[in-house]
Amino acid sequence: MWKGPAVAAPVWSVDPRTGKQREQVAVEATAQEVDAAVRAAHEVRGSLADRAVRAAFLRGAADALEAARDGLVETADAETALGPVRLTGELARTCYQLRAFADIVDEGAFLGVVIDHPDDTATPPVPDLRRYKVPLGVVAVYSASNFPFAFSVAGGDTASALAAGCPVVVKAHPDHPGLSELVVKVLRRAAREQGVPDAVVGLVHGFEAGLELIRHPLVAAAGFTGSVKGGRALFDAAAARPVPIPFHGELGSLNPVVVTEAAAAERAEAIGAGLAGSMTLGVGQFCVKPGLVLVPSGAAGDGLVKSLTDGVSDTDAGVLLDHRMRDNFLAGIAERTQLPDVESPVTPGAGGEHTVSAGFLTVPAGKLAGEGEHDVLLEECFGPVTVVARYDDDAEARAVLSRLPGNLTATVHLSTEEAEGRGRGPELLAELTPLAGRVLVNGWPTGVAVAPAQHHGGPYPATTSTSTSVGGTAIERWLRPVAYQNAPEALLPPELRDDNPLGLPRRFNGRLEH
Amino acid sequence: MWKGPAVAAPVWSVDPRTGKQREQVAVEATAQEVDAAVRAAHEVRGSLADRAVRAAFLRGAADALEAARDGLVETADAETALGPVRLTGELARTCYQLRAFADIVDEGAFLGVVIDHPDDTATPPVPDLRRYKVPLGVVAVYSASNFPFAFSVAGGDTASALAAGCPVVVKAHPDHPGLSELVVKVLRRAAREQGVPDAVVGLVHGFEAGLELIRHPLVAAAGFTGSVKGGRALFDAAAARPVPIPFHGELGSLNPVVVTEAAAAERAEAIGAGLAGSMTLGVGQFCVKPGLVLVPSGAAGDGLVKSLTDGVSDTDAGVLLDHRMRDNFLAGIAERTQLPDVESPVTPGAGGEHTVSAGFLTVPAGKLAGEGEHDVLLEECFGPVTVVARYDDDAEARAVLSRLPGNLTATVHLSTEEAEGRGRGPELLAELTPLAGRVLVNGWPTGVAVAPAQHHGGPYPATTSTSTSVGGTAIERWLRPVAYQNAPEALLPPELRDDNPLGLPRRFNGRLEH
Repeated sequence: MWKGPAVAAPVWSVDPRTGKQREQVAVEATAQEVDAAVRAAHEVRGSLADRAVRAAFLRGAADALEAARDGLVETADAETALGPVRLTGELARTCYQLRAFADIVDEGAFLGVVIDHPDDTATPPVPDLRRYKVPLGVVAVYSASNFPFAFSVAGGDTASALAAGCPVVVKAHPDHPGLSELVVKVLRRAAREQGVPDAVVGLVHGFEAGLELIRHPLVAAAGFTGSVKGGRALFDAAAARPVPIPFHGELGSLNPVVVTEAAAAERAEAIGAGLAGSMTLGVGQFCVKPGLVLVPSGAAGDGLVKSLTDGVSDTDAGVLLDHRMRDNFLAGIAERTQLPDVESPVTPGAGGEHTVSAGFLTVPAGKLAGEGEHDVLLEECFGPVTVVARYDDDAEARAVLSRLPGNLTATVHLSTEEAEGRGRGPELLAELTPLAGRVLVNGWPTGVAVAPAQHHGGPYPATTSTSTSVGGTAIERWLRPVAYQNAPEALLPPELRDDNPLGLPRRFNGRLEH
Repeated sequence: MWKGPAVAAPVWSVDPRTGKQREQVAVEATAQEVDAAVRAAHEVRGSLADRAVRAAFLRGAADALEAARDGLVETADAETALGPVRLTGELARTCYQLRAFADIVDEGAFLGVVIDHPDDTATPPVPDLRRYKVPLGVVAVYSASNFPFAFSVAGGDTASALAAGCPVVVKAHPDHPGLSELVVKVLRRAAREQGVPDAVVGLVHGFEAGLELIRHPLVAAAGFTGSVKGGRALFDAAAARPVPIPFHGELGSLNPVVVTEAAAAERAEAIGAGLAGSMTLGVGQFCVKPGLVLVPSGAAGDGLVKSLTDGVSDTDAGVLLDHRMRDNFLAGIAERTQLPDVESPVTPGAGGEHTVSAGFLTVPAGKLAGEGEHDVLLEECFGPVTVVARYDDDAEARAVLSRLPGNLTATVHLSTEEAEGRGRGPELLAELTPLAGRVLVNGWPTGVAVAPAQHHGGPYPATTSTSTSVGGTAIERWLRPVAYQNAPEALLPPELRDDNPLGLPRRFNGRLEH
């Protein structure tokens, strides 16, 4: 067993605008400290059993985060360079998310209550069965680099796990350790204010600590947002445990976009401009950045590329989340631009010492239709770049789509006629559905609304499970069903009693009730 | 890559009552044949897209199995020795299950339809989002030895996968290959009669073929019922794939039973007799056989053991499903009976050349309260044996429970007063809930009713996932969500249209509707 660093390893907050260390904010957790955090969380799991307490805690956390907004946004900006406007919006979204899960806890549909009365006349007789869902236990949450609020310490994984009744131990992302420390303090204080022991939310720093966490016998499930490499390593560790646990990881996604010939003919300029905005948003650091765009050959497509060129050229250089990402981005660009038949109308690259400039590549779609050296163009490249593949006919576009791994999103731009159900519209929607968890028409995938109908996930490597990490149904990941057979009313939890004292939506003797 | 047996390996039907080969019924599938079965199933997956067709196919399959009943039961009995009464009942259950899934398909609640209208006034604006669930693709089903109908070729995994819209390739269990061939023919004919290509249900034989199946790139998920060893090997293979897939395995379960002091005082004889019946049912070959029973020390517990002794002594010797199981059973008994302080009031063992006789062991509960050589008593032993652990006080019983791995079921026998909510009743229910997927009061776990509220699953190794393999919600395992963003009505599937032409239960702008 790994025992942790021999000497406490410092955790530094770093300014990505300069590459300089700001201050030491923590030390990496030892194995003993990971163990202590998990055990403490496990010990107090019962404090989240009461749904009213959970809802109050989630709402209190949202209030407290809002009250601390200015300081949180300042630290987040200093560590991520994402800018105060975006970060203020992201914090608002994070608070909305916490409150939305409080509403979900109150409603109780997620409990999946099903009650079947006995049937003594059946052969064999059917007993009284009552089923609902119970929390799995301590959830390990691995924070994302690119959403320091919404997919980090108080983000969707934490909110949905607490809503489910599961304590959480968060592995902080090294890109914003100072913010992580501030946010966990807010959450822990909000817990105490509702009479919940603050050990329901733990925080650890360090790569090895993250591995230790996924292997801990008392960790019952994990949520992750990050790279394919890191996520797969943790997925493998979760599966290799003596007792394997669910690992809900969001890894990588190319987010293909298809522009039909008719759509390009109708509004090449608007599509090109929209694409430029989407792929450069947040310096191209969104997991749903469009990374591959199928554009028809010919004049209409040329117009789109021209508009994209203008839009991207007008984009200011930007700072990536850390300098390792900048190195990876530049290496990824170098690898892709040296390929035969790849051109770069606007060459992405080093903007200044600490920045990168946006750009895009073009390639004939035929180069991607079969296995070969161009396959690297079908892999995600994190940062402000996209690949425009020019296709000659529908068969060529289809051939490229058929070679894609799973995605979070797939987008199609249709003409007005096609959107009305004529031509290739219905067919394209059907072709894109197997590729992704979210299919968009005439829009851009950046921007993931928090709504009941949302699904943020998709076939591997978009996610390692069939669940969503955004929207109300994200709570389902942290629960398991339990059925009680012939348990007398006096022993049943109130959720499962005939008279439904809590007014829960349920299936009662086969019929849905709410 | 494994290429399959050099010479076609014969698959023999064997009579467990004699150990003799009955006839050759098939050959083991080569890698090419596995590939062909999966590709054929994948190719025709679209034929299951229409829910009405799926429901008709499931009902037609039930009708056809019933029509073929006599021949099927005869072959099943010849291969498993489970007897015509049990097998006739199991076939009826299997047909009920197929029809129940047809009803579920018709109702459509499993689609999880959620519709959110856009909100342009929100910051940022919320788009139109509509979500439902789509089938994953080809499902690999690994048949069980002990349920040749209900957990095999036409069993719950197959029924739920087809209901979800997924084609199936079944790995036959070597204990009933002849029956598997007969059942798949019935299913394939039922498919054709509904205009569905019969490749939607494939069948392969052979251990290596089973491994090849789980690794096939076009297999999207798997269901398994069997041993911890076999299930874990397949789970590991599923997780190690370049694209990992969900593996829903039911592996092993001890199914603990706790008898309180007060319950034993009230009805020792009835509980002992009930236990004898449950643990010997089907020659102890149920996955929910009670394998560990906590019985109080003292006179009342002695009475229970006396009653159990009488009941088990009266049980006829029986034939296990195959001779390998018989060998394993006898070896398991030998290993357990030689432990210090283990007694066997009725010694289980070889009944005759091809049979086994039922029995049970007793041990002081203290021997199981901490790690040691007695730990083997906490492992499942397939066959007609159970372990009675005598406890001195509640703390000792609790110590044993705290050491158990996950279970399909946990049972408590309470006195009339305790069942009314007094004494240890509520506390015991709370203690058993974390241990199992189904918690029973004053009953026996053998017998798994097919009902909406059923849950057949539990913490690992009871199952490798948080899903159920019995009851209506088993369908959830073979689906993944897809959300459509701003898709025009003309392009949406009817399931997601505002006017709800199919009358589906759904969540519409936040409100549940049905």
